[in-house]
Amino acid sequence: MTPELYVPAITPFAADLSVDTGRLVDHAQALLAAGAHGLAPFGTTSEANSLSVEERIEGLEALLGAGIDPARIIPGTGCAALPDTIRLTRHAWEAGCKGALMLPPFYYKGVPEAGLADAFSRAIEGAGEGAVYLYHIPQMSGVPITAGLIETLIGRFGGAIAGLKDSSGDWAGTEALIRAFPGLAIYSASESLIPRNVAAGGAGCISASANVNPEGIRRLIDALGTADEGAALEQVSAVRRIFEGLPLIPSIKAAVAAQRGDAAYARVRPPFRPADPAGEGVRRAVAAAAGVPA
Amino acid sequence: MTPELYVPAITPFAADLSVDTGRLVDHAQALLAAGAHGLAPFGTTSEANSLSVEERIEGLEALLGAGIDPARIIPGTGCAALPDTIRLTRHAWEAGCKGALMLPPFYYKGVPEAGLADAFSRAIEGAGEGAVYLYHIPQMSGVPITAGLIETLIGRFGGAIAGLKDSSGDWAGTEALIRAFPGLAIYSASESLIPRNVAAGGAGCISASANVNPEGIRRLIDALGTADEGAALEQVSAVRRIFEGLPLIPSIKAAVAAQRGDAAYARVRPPFRPADPAGEGVRRAVAAAAGVPA
Repeated sequence: MTPELYVPAITPFAADLSVDTGRLVDHAQALLAAGAHGLAPFGTTSEANSLSVEERIEGLEALLGAGIDPARIIPGTGCAALPDTIRLTRHAWEAGCKGALMLPPFYYKGVPEAGLADAFSRAIEGAGEGAVYLYHIPQMSGVPITAGLIETLIGRFGGAIAGLKDSSGDWAGTEALIRAFPGLAIYSASESLIPRNVAAGGAGCISASANVNPEGIRRLIDALGTADEGAALEQVSAVRRIFEGLPLIPSIKAAVAAQRGDAAYARVRPPFRPADPAGEGVRRAVAAAAGVPA
Repeated sequence: MTPELYVPAITPFAADLSVDTGRLVDHAQALLAAGAHGLAPFGTTSEANSLSVEERIEGLEALLGAGIDPARIIPGTGCAALPDTIRLTRHAWEAGCKGALMLPPFYYKGVPEAGLADAFSRAIEGAGEGAVYLYHIPQMSGVPITAGLIETLIGRFGGAIAGLKDSSGDWAGTEALIRAFPGLAIYSASESLIPRNVAAGGAGCISASANVNPEGIRRLIDALGTADEGAALEQVSAVRRIFEGLPLIPSIKAAVAAQRGDAAYARVRPPFRPADPAGEGVRRAVAAAAGVPA
């Protein structure tokens, strides 16, 4: 498969912390214009788990209403509650989205693999027809997507199980999944892993920092196997390192705000706090972001 | 304060796994008739995080419509998404409920205490006027309710911060909270802790196994400080021990089903699996529950 960059676009908020669909669309269009292959909105970086089902539907409608091709959108649709997952997945599939990025139900911990298989199966059967991208981010969800679960779901739904986003940060685990499931499009969550991901047969990346550095990451993808690969990898890794040790989502939003010269992008919903613009880390991130073409 | 038993009532499901409000009401009324002081529905044991906001509102409406006094209900209202928490809390408060049992926003981990304080504050301000019971269950939520957070919220909202359910299982931690916040009604999640909880100045218990053993737990509360306390404590502890090592919620539901002679009560929503009725542990739980007056 041709490697791709899908951006987990941030969700901008108005002063009253309602979703700012105008800036959501502006940012999404800027990301695509900068070379992103597509968008993976309403995931972790998008603060989607702080949004109601209605807000997520309206947000996706705004992107579609602005003319963004649904075949370039993989919205997050996995919620704690099965009826919510069904509603969002059906909406995404009926809109013609490339697929639905599904978290496992994430409140209850230590549940059996067979129970998770039931949850995904009922979500898929309840939502209709479309592609599923499984979302493995155990450090947030507390509920891992295991190889056994993937195997069960492929056994039940075949090619509808289209891919997986591996946000675990565990490259050995990602590599094992790519080898075990060659038919799945497996994305890493870090652009630094793109060369290894693609060499192993992976699909590319869906990375938070792509909100700040879409051009650089696209350049790396296009440079794979050429003389420019090393320099491109060094650029994306340098941008990514800026955010290490900072609260990721507020800092990414502060950097986008600096890049666009629009402080509104820095707003976050609780339980996050806005990044302290006077903090040393955020000042570095903002300065570096300002030097990155948006 | 007079010690109390509030029961985190299970949520029965129909064959299609929609909420069975008829059995929900029947079970709730049976619990109150058996001596429970009140109900804490739509919490963890109730599988509330597997229900949509609409299902939770309809479930509470069913209980109220059946004539259950709202002053005896503390429904769970805390969700991952702030708009959902506001909607459920406003509904509970407008219905006259004794209070709202609020989980912290539980998807994002490692968030700052100040961000959690913001989340609770916006939920309370958005919902209107009523009492808040904070819900500390870090092994599920991944987000603890710390003493610093409680102090901040009491500073902002005074007596509206009415209590806390401590499901951590850490008695030393509960005791420290009872001593630090004498104005809070602090409930333990295990009936075995009732004597210690009440002696320290706590409010009683909100325990999953109260779905199976409400009479026994009420008997213990009434026997505190009398010659019958030891035997009553032994009875509730014996029932509770049956569920150790079993998947708690499915086993509680299987035991209720056995008690009521109605297999429908055993249904669970994914990601849970129904308890295996042939399993040794469940057979013991069911046999013991059958011997407990419902």
